[in-house]
Amino acid sequence: MNTDLQDYSHKRLNILTGEWVLVSPHRAKRPWQGQNESVSNETRPSHDPNCYLCAGNTRINGEINPKYKDVFVFTNDFAALQTNSKVFKVEDGLLSAQSEQGICKVICFSPDHSKSLADMAPKEIEKVIFAWQQEYKELADNDLINYVQIFENKGAVMGCSNPHPHGQIWSQTSLPNEVEKKDKHQLDYYLKNKKSLLGDYLKQELNKKERIIFENDAFVVLVPYWAIWPFETMIVPKRHQLNILELKENESLLFGEAISTITKAYDKLFKTSFPYSSGIHQAPTNGEDNSHWHWHMSFYPPLLRSATVKKFMVGYEMFGSPQRDITAEIACNKLKELI
Amino acid sequence: MNTDLQDYSHKRLNILTGEWVLVSPHRAKRPWQGQNESVSNETRPSHDPNCYLCAGNTRINGEINPKYKDVFVFTNDFAALQTNSKVFKVEDGLLSAQSEQGICKVICFSPDHSKSLADMAPKEIEKVIFAWQQEYKELADNDLINYVQIFENKGAVMGCSNPHPHGQIWSQTSLPNEVEKKDKHQLDYYLKNKKSLLGDYLKQELNKKERIIFENDAFVVLVPYWAIWPFETMIVPKRHQLNILELKENESLLFGEAISTITKAYDKLFKTSFPYSSGIHQAPTNGEDNSHWHWHMSFYPPLLRSATVKKFMVGYEMFGSPQRDITAEIACNKLKELI
Ligand SMILES: O=P(O)(O)O[C@H]1O[C@H](CO)[C@@H](O)[C@H](O)[C@H]1O
Ligand SMILES: O=P(O)(O)O[C@H]1O[C@H](CO)[C@@H](O)[C@H](O)[C@H]1O
Repeated sequence: MNTDLQDYSHKRLNILTGEWVLVSPHRAKRPWQGQNESVSNETRPSHDPNCYLCAGNTRINGEINPKYKDVFVFTNDFAALQTNSKVFKVEDGLLSAQSEQGICKVICFSPDHSKSLADMAPKEIEKVIFAWQQEYKELADNDLINYVQIFENKGAVMGCSNPHPHGQIWSQTSLPNEVEKKDKHQLDYYLKNKKSLLGDYLKQELNKKERIIFENDAFVVLVPYWAIWPFETMIVPKRHQLNILELKENESLLFGEAISTITKAYDKLFKTSFPYSSGIHQAPTNGEDNSHWHWHMSFYPPLLRSATVKKFMVGYEMFGSPQRDITAEIACNKLKELI
Repeated sequence: MNTDLQDYSHKRLNILTGEWVLVSPHRAKRPWQGQNESVSNETRPSHDPNCYLCAGNTRINGEINPKYKDVFVFTNDFAALQTNSKVFKVEDGLLSAQSEQGICKVICFSPDHSKSLADMAPKEIEKVIFAWQQEYKELADNDLINYVQIFENKGAVMGCSNPHPHGQIWSQTSLPNEVEKKDKHQLDYYLKNKKSLLGDYLKQELNKKERIIFENDAFVVLVPYWAIWPFETMIVPKRHQLNILELKENESLLFGEAISTITKAYDKLFKTSFPYSSGIHQAPTNGEDNSHWHWHMSFYPPLLRSATVKKFMVGYEMFGSPQRDITAEIACNKLKELI
């Protein structure tokens, strides 16, 4: 292990986005006198009559949820993107705008209000994965949709307005900023090397074994070299796959196992239902040749020191670049011990 | 005014960074059931014996603050960047890292523990501006320092660990991500047009008058067309200036007036001491020709609907692109009414 990286301030390159993260290892010793998050230790009931995501309940728009048994998907009642909105363009000197259309969906992971992915068996998570695949396929077939963003905001501190286990899918006409960046860097590498960037990165990581938390036959769970969030992790398929539709035979269950393993470790870390935003970056659905894409799922959890002390990405991070205190290697070791 | 922008989902281009923000105007009607921030309505004493920033008090490292009368600057006791750290480079296959050196300072805006910039007169804020100038100049003269980031995190919700009115200055060897982007886009425009990008943008905004909150002889306060945060604003000097050292005669007082005006309006908006991160982007101090730079100060406040409901930049925003509900024009009108 390169010990300089554990001792001195440095920046690391994110090869997928081309951006840098500032790492200040010595700063982990800083005392914390700022805001503490409140932790809710309430145990939730399996069914909450006031929850608009529970089976059989009525949503805000008056629709009644079916008595679903595993996964339930519906179109977001307050969708940020719509299919029937007007198409227009503004090119007025230095003012540029473009209409954006899309479809936003909500996906309930389980009818059980009390659960999270960390409480679900790989077999149950596999049903969520099947739903993601079905939605991705259906949206990919829609001419209006060129990109599908699957994500989850978990925990009140991540802006999640309902503790019922659920995620979202926002799909749209154009590629969002983060996807544009990853598209470009993966393409550059692929054109030069005729191989997947993430595939080659994975080989290097599997060799070094410094940032690997877990692996099974099809997946690796690791802390990326360029991780921004204190306990950020990434699930990467070992085979070069463009999107989640390429999962073969038992790979969906192995993906479920990877998700189960990392979310369980997270919950153990600070003995709390660990908040995070997670998301799957995969090939656009724009009908172009996307052979350069290697899909992956990332977890961005905000907690830094305990269930109540999070990392704030504020002033310097907003105006300069992301900054972290504990290194990727230390974070990896802490998570690995919990598996 | 283009009414499509007020009615339909669209994206707008940030001409300084080249990135897009997704705007979903219809979504402002969404009910909020998520986390509420707590508001502290405690009135603070003018001197707090336990505050490590108050005059005459002892800091964590044992140093005693002078009995300062207006502004007080010192080197951060837990600096993320240091001058005496090791210089090294990692180029190992797909792993890239580089040591980063720098100097981090804390700047107390006033000895009065109970105040914020919004409670200070333009003349008092001018003293803060003089201190920023002096620090910028001193750091610019340091060969190690190629960029100086002045910023403030205000409020517990912005990760500020001490309510004493203060900001920070992080300066370093390389240009952080956000500065790189703005450097590139300003340079491209300058090479093509021999004029400042922000200067031309300002002309267009002053013409349209749709996003201008306030102006005086030297400054404009506006909501940028591409604002991300609900009530994001930008203070821009009317003259093309590379950095804050170029302020002439009475311009520093006029800058103080601009800061005073917008921070006072913020406090009135939700009847609370308005949290934000603010920062000044200005020419790097790398000794190169930076004629393309036009410095500006931005405010990124998180509150959306009230003193307790903020906008969460989470799942979609982290994996896709920033997203906002109320438009820049509506936000501008609300702030303008409070001046
Ligand atoms: O330096 P402070 O005020 O202790 O810390 C605050 O500002 C820093 C710079 O934006 C951030 O890195 C920290 O996460 C935040 O809590
Ligand atoms: O859609 P929700 O869960 O109501 O809202 C949450 O996720 C969205 C997508 O990341 C964000 O835009 C919102 O700020 C956040 O509160």
